[in-house]
Amino acid sequence: MNQKSDPIGIFDSGVGGLSVLREIYKQLPYENTVYFADHMHFPYSEKPAELIKEYVLDIINFLINNKTKIIIIACNVATSIALKNTRNIYKIPIIGVIEPGAKSAVKVTKNKSIGVLGGKKVEEVYRKVHKSLDSDIKTFGYPCPDFAKFVEQGLSDPKEIQETAYSYLKNIKEKDIDTLIFGCTHYPFLKDFVKEVVGPNIKLVDPSQETVESAREILKKHGLLNEKIQKEAAHIFFISGNKPDFKFVAEKLLNEKVDKVVQNIQL
Amino acid sequence: MNQKSDPIGIFDSGVGGLSVLREIYKQLPYENTVYFADHMHFPYSEKPAELIKEYVLDIINFLINNKTKIIIIACNVATSIALKNTRNIYKIPIIGVIEPGAKSAVKVTKNKSIGVLGGKKVEEVYRKVHKSLDSDIKTFGYPCPDFAKFVEQGLSDPKEIQETAYSYLKNIKEKDIDTLIFGCTHYPFLKDFVKEVVGPNIKLVDPSQETVESAREILKKHGLLNEKIQKEAAHIFFISGNKPDFKFVAEKLLNEKVDKVVQNIQL
Repeated sequence: MNQKSDPIGIFDSGVGGLSVLREIYKQLPYENTVYFADHMHFPYSEKPAELIKEYVLDIINFLINNKTKIIIIACNVATSIALKNTRNIYKIPIIGVIEPGAKSAVKVTKNKSIGVLGGKKVEEVYRKVHKSLDSDIKTFGYPCPDFAKFVEQGLSDPKEIQETAYSYLKNIKEKDIDTLIFGCTHYPFLKDFVKEVVGPNIKLVDPSQETVESAREILKKHGLLNEKIQKEAAHIFFISGNKPDFKFVAEKLLNEKVDKVVQNIQL
Repeated sequence: MNQKSDPIGIFDSGVGGLSVLREIYKQLPYENTVYFADHMHFPYSEKPAELIKEYVLDIINFLINNKTKIIIIACNVATSIALKNTRNIYKIPIIGVIEPGAKSAVKVTKNKSIGVLGGKKVEEVYRKVHKSLDSDIKTFGYPCPDFAKFVEQGLSDPKEIQETAYSYLKNIKEKDIDTLIFGCTHYPFLKDFVKEVVGPNIKLVDPSQETVESAREILKKHGLLNEKIQKEAAHIFFISGNKPDFKFVAEKLLNEKVDKVVQNIQL
């Protein structure tokens, strides 16, 4: 049985899930965390669904073996493909980012027209969840294939990112959306670049905020919320494969020191 | 959600679990089955507990991915180390062989002295379960380190087996046990050799019978018992690593044709 001091488990195909981890640091500063980056299989968006389901099961087993008390699938693709399946299989609470993201966006939109930055599959799942929350909502997708790569590279070439953001989003005002969801956990790290193109009138929604609120509620309900001040919460990072610049990139994205990184985890 | 026609999943480090599969064929002839032999890690008895826990999680994921409706850990070592853990993790019903074996033995014994053929760890778990069922029961262990290997080799050298059985069990009457449990799923295939040494007055208990009865009850309770006569129940066998003689050995042990064998499964 889990204890309050057990860590929150969180994973992504890469460093994108750090946008959710950053939100945990902010909302739940006393929680210990275990982060898993499935670098060996990055990016998930180009993998068959059956493979992604297997990766996710392997990672969840790994996190459970590391005594996690709740698991956050901090990846939109993995959430869209594997969340339901994992909830059928495991007893541990598992949450994804899409329902929280959709809820946030539906609260924010005034004109019921919501854009999703992300691929086709993710766009479709958001459309479905939006409809279930409010049948009048219209959902429009905006694929941004190279965005995740820029974040993995630690935002090393701002000029290229800004030009790419412009090319992806220059026609965004054609649909009159007033809300835009980051449909990939990498994208909140590109917020300034996106803002620069879409202007001040489109509200940007980062699902991580509502995701972590949802995690907090579930932990509270199970009596597992860690509200006790520790000397320092422990944060550990596991990487499948090898990403030599993980520490450098993660510290840049999180704006926090990253000490415990274990590379080459075999699942 | 599972359906009646979904298979029963069953696994062991090798061919020992076939003694449980044989009992499924007998008691539940309409059930489809998926058998997993973790040949790559045979024998479990020599592996650290933490590794066995990981193997078991990987196999259970594999079986769940193959749509199994219930899982039988058809291995005493894996049951003793991992059953409780897996039940904490997964929603699917999971049963082991030790509780059923202990229940059978406690029903059978008249003088409350029960022997267990098996290693120290397995003996201890049986002792604990016996005590919980009847605090007067005395439990005695008889390690038989080479028995499983003989079964893996398809009982190819009866003379050697008989001599080894004699050397392991020649002092068995010193303790006045009246009941002897096969504390490893390989051992029921050596029944005749054991009988030859221990004589007619010690009752031999094969846990597989009560294990399959227990599986039947659980399936019935969940509305998942397959009682409909199919053309032919499907039985498939997966092997980690490579055991070229699996089909030959399995057919000899089961006394049934074994058609679908898939080798070299990577978990």
